[in-house]
Formats: sequence, structure tokens, C-alpha cells
Amino acid sequence: MAAWLVGINTLKIQPLKLPPLGPHHVRIRMKAVGICGSDVHLFKTLKLVDFEIKEPMVIGHECAGGRYNLCPEWRLLSMPPVHGALARQIVHPADLCFKLPDNVSLEEGAMCEPLSVAVHACRRADISPETNVLVVGAGPIGLVTMLAARSFGAPRVVIVDVDEHRLSVAKDLGADGVIKVSSNMQDIPEEVETICKAMGAAVHVSFDCVAFSKTMSTALGATRAGGKVCLIGLGHNEMTNPLTPAAAREVDVIGCFMYTNTWPLCIELLRSGKIDVKSLITHRFGFYQKEVEEAFETSARGGSAIKVMFKL
Amino acid sequence: MAAWLVGINTLKIQPLKLPPLGPHHVRIRMKAVGICGSDVHLFKTLKLVDFEIKEPMVIGHECAGGRYNLCPEWRLLSMPPVHGALARQIVHPADLCFKLPDNVSLEEGAMCEPLSVAVHACRRADISPETNVLVVGAGPIGLVTMLAARSFGAPRVVIVDVDEHRLSVAKDLGADGVIKVSSNMQDIPEEVETICKAMGAAVHVSFDCVAFSKTMSTALGATRAGGKVCLIGLGHNEMTNPLTPAAAREVDVIGCFMYTNTWPLCIELLRSGKIDVKSLITHRFGFYQKEVEEAFETSARGGSAIKVMFKL
Amino acid sequence: MAAWLVGINTLKIQPLKLPPLGPHHVRIRMKAVGICGSDVHLFKTLKLVDFEIKEPMVIGHECAGGRYNLCPEWRLLSMPPVHGALARQIVHPADLCFKLPDNVSLEEGAMCEPLSVAVHACRRADISPETNVLVVGAGPIGLVTMLAARSFGAPRVVIVDVDEHRLSVAKDLGADGVIKVSSNMQDIPEEVETICKAMGAAVHVSFDCVAFSKTMSTALGATRAGGKVCLIGLGHNEMTNPLTPAAAREVDVIGCFMYTNTWPLCIELLRSGKIDVKSLITHRFGFYQKEVEEAFETSARGGSAIKVMFKL
Amino acid sequence: MAAWLVGINTLKIQPLKLPPLGPHHVRIRMKAVGICGSDVHLFKTLKLVDFEIKEPMVIGHECAGGRYNLCPEWRLLSMPPVHGALARQIVHPADLCFKLPDNVSLEEGAMCEPLSVAVHACRRADISPETNVLVVGAGPIGLVTMLAARSFGAPRVVIVDVDEHRLSVAKDLGADGVIKVSSNMQDIPEEVETICKAMGAAVHVSFDCVAFSKTMSTALGATRAGGKVCLIGLGHNEMTNPLTPAAAREVDVIGCFMYTNTWPLCIELLRSGKIDVKSLITHRFGFYQKEVEEAFETSARGGSAIKVMFKL
Repeated sequence: MAAWLVGINTLKIQPLKLPPLGPHHVRIRMKAVGICGSDVHLFKTLKLVDFEIKEPMVIGHECAGGRYNLCPEWRLLSMPPVHGALARQIVHPADLCFKLPDNVSLEEGAMCEPLSVAVHACRRADISPETNVLVVGAGPIGLVTMLAARSFGAPRVVIVDVDEHRLSVAKDLGADGVIKVSSNMQDIPEEVETICKAMGAAVHVSFDCVAFSKTMSTALGATRAGGKVCLIGLGHNEMTNPLTPAAAREVDVIGCFMYTNTWPLCIELLRSGKIDVKSLITHRFGFYQKEVEEAFETSARGGSAIKVMFKL
Repeated sequence: MAAWLVGINTLKIQPLKLPPLGPHHVRIRMKAVGICGSDVHLFKTLKLVDFEIKEPMVIGHECAGGRYNLCPEWRLLSMPPVHGALARQIVHPADLCFKLPDNVSLEEGAMCEPLSVAVHACRRADISPETNVLVVGAGPIGLVTMLAARSFGAPRVVIVDVDEHRLSVAKDLGADGVIKVSSNMQDIPEEVETICKAMGAAVHVSFDCVAFSKTMSTALGATRAGGKVCLIGLGHNEMTNPLTPAAAREVDVIGCFMYTNTWPLCIELLRSGKIDVKSLITHRFGFYQKEVEEAFETSARGGSAIKVMFKL
Repeated sequence: MAAWLVGINTLKIQPLKLPPLGPHHVRIRMKAVGICGSDVHLFKTLKLVDFEIKEPMVIGHECAGGRYNLCPEWRLLSMPPVHGALARQIVHPADLCFKLPDNVSLEEGAMCEPLSVAVHACRRADISPETNVLVVGAGPIGLVTMLAARSFGAPRVVIVDVDEHRLSVAKDLGADGVIKVSSNMQDIPEEVETICKAMGAAVHVSFDCVAFSKTMSTALGATRAGGKVCLIGLGHNEMTNPLTPAAAREVDVIGCFMYTNTWPLCIELLRSGKIDVKSLITHRFGFYQKEVEEAFETSARGGSAIKVMFKL
Repeated sequence: MAAWLVGINTLKIQPLKLPPLGPHHVRIRMKAVGICGSDVHLFKTLKLVDFEIKEPMVIGHECAGGRYNLCPEWRLLSMPPVHGALARQIVHPADLCFKLPDNVSLEEGAMCEPLSVAVHACRRADISPETNVLVVGAGPIGLVTMLAARSFGAPRVVIVDVDEHRLSVAKDLGADGVIKVSSNMQDIPEEVETICKAMGAAVHVSFDCVAFSKTMSTALGATRAGGKVCLIGLGHNEMTNPLTPAAAREVDVIGCFMYTNTWPLCIELLRSGKIDVKSLITHRFGFYQKEVEEAFETSARGGSAIKVMFKL
């Protein structure tokens, strides 16, 4: 069976022997797999936070044809050293697989994975009809976070990014305000002021979907006293931030990593139409060596590419 | 009436005209006022977090003879530009004053102020009989935080500091483990390991009572996945921390500033003997120009001085 | 100024002397006042829970032209012995008055009061996109509770009542299931089964908007282990319920009384169109002795009358 | 192997075939088993809440020599139809067994079971140094609830019962106030007043460890607005209570059933000496037909018998 293996010297589609099929497992024919920013990160650096690729492994975790969730020991598809889903077939525990409703496509099903990250963050931040939300970063995670916050009732959502195209996508998806920011630390005070003005009210929760010193400092500065900043992004490990003045306003920093028990809710949100992710899928590729390479390049370039999806 | 005024060119006892006594105010004869680290900070830099002294003002907020709490607009004794309590008399709203029980001395009463900071942090961190606690910094706030955590039921408390004397005080006050640490960033991994070994169990909550890059990084590293780091200290505004890996373990950073509605609980904890702060008061000074200067120097030097108290 | 006074021997429009206008008060020209079930209750029994009318007083608390909220000592419009709003003018603290947006009518503004009850209950029950909701009672409070639960994200809402007309209104307002129930205790097991089948999933939260032994027992029985029953209704003080078996499934009973800080949210929900209360206002009356009497009779009869509104 | 079987026509020690020993199970030699009120209830009525004994089964669940906890499907020792621990040996999953520290006796270990009920209730009620506690019922569960509340920091605990001996035990165990009450509903208002006076402060949380209409009504009446009543007892299924006026003061009723993940905490509380249960064990019996019968009679009579323990 063919799979996309990322390894020390091998970045290509290769045959892969599936693990044995236990009594509680099912073999799943993959049909749609999306590229996550963390896939690109793994692909280029062989590392992610504290995880490291030491042997060739299959990456990819945004998939349908079937799906997965957290297992108790945090063994996760595509989290080194566990193989991912970018393969024609995978073997997965049967009770971690959910059937998609008729009106949810396999591509939309694959979007349940990034959407799960957003839903988990909204749960941790306790988003409700009383929470005005700032999203820092309008990439795929930022955009699904905006959509998830809406479905949790957030009355106002403002989103910022350095890229105008992504902001225009955010606007089309219903952002109350979109703000182009720089990558320059010195602009923070002025940009915070612009954000607060665009919100027209207090920012109760900010989601940093990037994790750079600048994005985090912006989030900390824009959030009202007693509010929360959710750190979702995995950009830089080390950051330099005015953490003390934020703490002195009792702005809490909430860590968010992956998700738990989100699939049924995500499927329900897609089924009921409360969240529509179809416009986020901007590029599609087949599962051949050349196309896979091109797909990763497209995803890495960003720009007009939001979610890049494989059709297997 | 004499008061200790801190100002651009004046750091001395000077006459002070009391504000008019409104129908809901009382005039309080100060009897005991402690020196807080933030008093020393203000005295030396004229700044604290985002507050700045622009005109001569009375400092001091750890006081008895009477007491105070947060007013709705966060106008706090000694928080610029509001005058503090280091004066022979102050005028204060009557309903923010609490009578001390017979078995609680005025000096202990003055300790309700730093104890309030600790109680507020324990509330925010939800300390219970199921919470193992790490305290970073064995200064006055670190020590009362340890005592408060105990009174909230914490089964194990480990405390770290750079000063051996303070650690020995912590040991005498009942710390389960005391660890001398360096001020060198490179020692963090090894020190975290030592902390975890001394705890003999997971660290559920860490209190950073210092707020330096090193203390915060130590707290973030030592706290178990899903735990909390409470940032109480006001040391440095900017810090460089591995915030992303901590967030990826869902370690939350909880900001703590001052306190609300803590006085009755603090007085009850002192009255019932669940907390004993008497041994923390290591130095006493009278309220004369020379003694005040010496008192501040003693407090600033640290070392064997834990809490320096004025008797007025 | 004319007001509707309820008293031992007087149930009529009478002149009323307004209280003096203090510096922080405003005089409000009432324009729309709704009749609440508790108004009818007061009117007929001179009692409500533990409150009793001992001297003639103005009733009415669902009003616009201005509005009110809880004051710290729970002195509430129309809660004996405090005069209500069913008067041509009232005097009210200025900072408890909210301006309605242009696209929210005065009648809709008056609906902020019952909607506040619903919003408060949804907050206490922590309604979210993950909470399936049962509403027991399709009167005005039951219906606005359904609407509020939707705006908090509730994916499925089933509502039960003894009156088919009210159920058809609930259906039109978007209930996922409506069930006609009896007032017979023996029917509870079968009706609980019907409710669970209509929900097609676990009932996470039930709102008892009636407060009879039967409605509460139904709510307790239908709610899943670990769920919550919110008791909003004020029907009977004493109830006989299988409280122990419910507790043995850790179904909590959450008490709900009035609301706090709900007005801005209610106004926002009406302004944004997330909640539409217009169809709930079924009858309108002028403010003349005969019309007022007729209005109360209409409200007391129930049936096709949902919310009866005065235009003053 | 001998076991105490409760069945339709058999209430005696009988040989029992142990289930097969799976790879994840251990066979445990029982050394101490306590009699719970629910054991007596089962023994006399063959029922408990909604559970019913349909075939002869071993009862007993307060045991050491080993121990148990909740399994995911709520299959619990001695909860019909699952056999209990009153047997010379039982087979139990190995990972649900905890080793007792050297300074905790097997009898104290058996007390971890009722103590777990108390700890679970204190968790659900969020007991802290700021919670004044009323305990209704000074039987074994009431007494361990008092001890657990203390270990969670409760500053004041008042306990009521109909039995003077039990109240004197409560007093010896450190109750701040003990009050003899009647079993007469009409005495409730006066008794509530006596309770509030004995507390000398607001009752934040009440534990009803009995579950009769009177005990629950007392708890509801004595608890301050915004407080909680935890229903732990399993006395009567149906109760008649003034639930509506309690809800109108936002007094929540918190259901408590068994416990989850309490053993490590209970063992730690016993090990550290924060809780001492030794004086609660008032009677000991051997495991022979006649002694077992006598033991159950002793437990059923109450009076001076608090906890009756078997030594096997």
C-alpha cells in the first residue's frame, strides 16, 4: 500500500506495510486528507514542539474515509513516532471511527480535524453569547476558530493577519472586523488601539493562532482585564512577552493542545449547517509523488492557499 | 500629621494634610505598617508595573490600626497616585475597616495585606487537599503563599529560592522540601528534575512569586500537563519563556493581582491559628526619619530580613 | 399620574404620587408593559413565594420606555412592597436604564424582562452547543427559555405542555420536538420515554418552567445522569418528588430567581436578530380601567394568549 | 470459600465459587469489612434506590485487604447484581487495588469506602476554608462527612441528629456545634433558627446524610441564598419539600452518589493524620454465622454503634 513517508532522506510516496488488524480495529480506505501547517513544519524541520522524527514515518492527520481521536497515552496520528493518515489505507481502532452523515462530504469530514482544535479552544476559553473574540492569525486554524467561536455564540469577532487575501476570506466568512497588521513589534500599541476600536467593545478572549512574540504580545495587550488569551499556535517555542503587566490585569493564558471528544460536535455543526467549511478548501491534489510535492509547496507558500486537500 | 512621602526629590517624613472626613469615613491611627517589596521598588524607581509616581505621595499598604481593601475603581492605598498608609493617621471608608479579634495583634493584622495576596492566588488556582504546590521564591509573599496553600489543604509544598536563609525559614514553617536554585537559565532542566524529585509526585500548581524569565520558566517546566502557574510576582515586565511548549501541555498561566474580599478570611485564619505569621516579622522600626531610611535599606537588602515592620 | 394599584380592596387605576426625583434618578414615561404570570398570581392571591402584598401597590415589571435591573438589596420593581411599572410614569435610577437600539421596538424592549429570566437560567445551566435541552411548560417563560437556549447554541430543544396551541407556537418558533403531556402523575414514566425518544439523544438540561410536583418529577426523570434540572417556575411551594433517585444519578437541581446583568445581552440578542420575540406578543390593551381588567383576564385564561402587553 | 450471601430465602454464610482469575485480576484475602447502612437496608428490603436483589448475592463493600472503585459501567461491589466483599476472598481488577501505607491499619483502610463518599461530596460541594458546613445526620456517613469537610478547610461545622449519643461522638470529633432535633416536621422553623444561631454565620453548604422529607427541608431552609444542599443519604425515594422557595433563593441541590478516584486522597488523609477514623469503629465481629447475624442487628439498632466491622 502506498503512503507518503517523511524521513531523514526520504520524502516520497513509498509502499508501506499496514500493521496487523486486531479484533477492535478497522482498515480504512483514505479518501480525503488535508495538509496542516504542522505537516509542513514536520516536513521541513523533522520537529514539532518537543516531538522529533527519527525514522521515516507517514504524516497527515486531517483525514476522512474514517477518523481518529486522542488515545489515552496521547498517541496521535502523525505525531512522531506514530504514522499518520496520508496513505491509501490505515488501520485504526474501530470505536474511534465516526460515520459521516449523508450531507457531509468526505472533504468536509477531513476538516473535522482542524475544526476540533478550534472547538477545543472555544471550550477551554468558555466562549458564549457574552464573549467578544479576537483571533490573531487568519490561516486555516484562525479561520476555523472564528467559525467555531460563532457557533458558540460569540457576538463579535475581529481577526488580524499580515496577509490581505486571508483577511478578505475572513471577511467573507463573517468577521465583524478584519485588520491588517505588520510583523513589527513597535506597531503593537497602535494596532491594539485599532483592534479595540474595531471591536467597539471589550475583547474578552483572544486566540493566538500563530505563537510569535508579536502575536502573543498583541493578544495580551488587546485583551481586557480579567479576560483570557488562548495560545493555539505552535510557531515559536520561546517568546518574549510583557507577561507580568498582563498578569497584573489578571489576563490568563490558556494552553490549548489538540482536543478531546470533539468529533461528534464537529460533525453535528457541519450537519446542521451552523458551520460551513467548504470555502476553506482552496486546492486539491491527487496522491502521486509529483502532486504531493506540489501540494506541500502550495500549502507552505500560503497566500491564496487556505486548506490544501488530497483526494486519494 | 507626619507621613512618609516618596516623591521626585523628597524621600522623607513630612507633615501631611489629611483629606476631609466624609460621613462614611473614619480616621485611623496607624499602629503597624509593614514594608512590601513593591514599596522598596516604588521607593527606588518611582514605578510599579504601569503605575508611576508623578507627585510626592505617601507609600505603604500593609497596615493595621485599621485596614483597607479594593474599592471598585481599583483605587488602592499606595498605588500611584493614591496615598498609602505609612502615616500616623489615615482617612478610610468605614465599611472597608475590620476589627481585629482579641487574639490577633496589630502587627499580625498588618500581615493580612500580604496574606491577602496569597489567599487570592490560592483561590484563583483552586488549591485543595488534592493540589501539590511549588512556590518559586521564599520572600515574604512566597512564604505566606506557602502558608495559605497549606490552609487550603495542599498536601505537599516545595519551595525554591536562591537564598539559604530564606529556605531555612521556609523549612521551619513546614515546607515539605526546600531547594536552593541558581539565577542561571541553563540550570533550569536540572533544577526542574530536582523539584519533581523533592515533590515525589506531580506538581499541580506553581506560584511564581518573583517574575523573572528564569523563575517563570522554572515554574512552567516543573508543572504537570494540565496544571497551572500563578504569576504573582512583579519583578520584570518583559520575560522570555518557553510559553508554547507549556501551552502544548495545557499548563495555564493565571494572573494574580491584589485581592478581593480577603480580609475576613485572613483574620479568621489568624484567629483560628491555622496560619501563624508571627515568625515572619523579623525587624521592627520606629517612625522617625532615620529609622524609616534604615528600615527601607534593611528590607531592600533581604537576607535575614523577611518582613520589616514599623511601629507608629 | 395614573397607575394600576393592586391592594386589599383596590384593584384599579388610581392616581399615584411619584417619589421625589433624586440626582441619580430619571423619570420614565412608560410605553409598553407586559403581563407576567406572576402578576396574575399577585393579582389573585396577593402573594408570591414568600412575598406578600400588605398595602396597595403598583404591579408590573416587564416594561420599556426604560427599564430596571436588580439592585443590591433585591428591591425589585413589583416585588412586594416595591411599586411596579404598570403606571404612566416611574422614577428609576438612571444607571439601571438602557437605551434601546433603533431596530428594537418598545414592545420588544419590554420582553427583555422575561427574556432575562431565560438568559439567567441558561447561564446558570451552562447551556452550550453541547447541551440538549428539555423545556417543561410552553408558556411565555418556557418559550423564551427555548429561544435563549438556542441562542446559547443548544443543538436540540424539546418542549412539553398540556396545551396544544402553545405547543404549536413552540413548533413554529423552532422546537425540535413538541409533546403534549397530561397533568396525571401516573403518566410520567411513559411521557419520559416519549421525551427521550423525541430528543433522540440524552437530555443534558431540563428547565421546569412550571414548578408542580408532576413537572419537576418529569424533569428529574428525563434528565440524564450527571445532568441538571433548572427550577424556574414558581407554581407550588411544596412539591413531592423522587429527589433521592435523581440525586443518586447526580442530577443537580439548580435554583433560578430573576437575573443579574442580563439587559445588555438581551438587547444585543434582539438587535442582532438571534432572538425574535415579536410573535410572542399576542394581545395588546390600552391603559384604561376596563381594558386593564380585560387584559388580566386574558392573561389568566392562557390558551391563545402568550404575552399580553399594555400600550400606555 | 465462605461468603455471606443475601438472597430470597438465604441469609447465611455459604460456600461461594470465586470467578476465574483473569490476567489483570488479583485474588484478595479480605481482612476487614465494615457494615454500611445500605447493607442493612439491602439485608432487610432486598432493595436500594432502583437496584433490587433477584438472586442470592454477597453483600459488603467497605473492605480492606484490598479495595475497589467505580468501574466505567458502574458495576460496583455489592450493588445488585454484583457480589460484594463480605467473603473470605474476592477477585478484583489489580489496577483498582491500592496498597495501604504502614501506618494505616486494615480497619482504617476499610473506612476509605465511607470516607470516599464524604470526600466525593466535599468535592462536588466545593468545600474550602470559606465554607461553613451543616451536616444533617450524625451516623457514620454524617461523621465522616464532617471530618472530610474539615480536611477541605471548612472553618465551622454544625451537625444535627435525633440521637444524643451520636451528637456526643460528633462533639468529640470536633464539631463546632451539635444540635438535637426531633423527627417532627413542625419543628423545622425553630430548629433552623437554632442551627443558624449555633453556626454564628451563614450556612454555605448543607449535607443531608439521611434523605427524609424533614432532613431535606431542614437543609434547604438553613442554607443561605446562593448556597448548596448536597443530598448524600438514601433514606426515602420520595420526599415532600419546599423546593420552589429554596430555588427562589438559588439554593442548589447537588446529587452525590458513590465516588470516583477518591482512594489515593483518602489514604493520604489517613496517612498524614489529617483525618482520624479510629474512634468511629465501635464494634468488631468475627466471620461466623452467628456473629454475622449479631453484627447486622447491632448495626441496624444504631445507638452506640457507629461503624460495625468484621475481622475475617
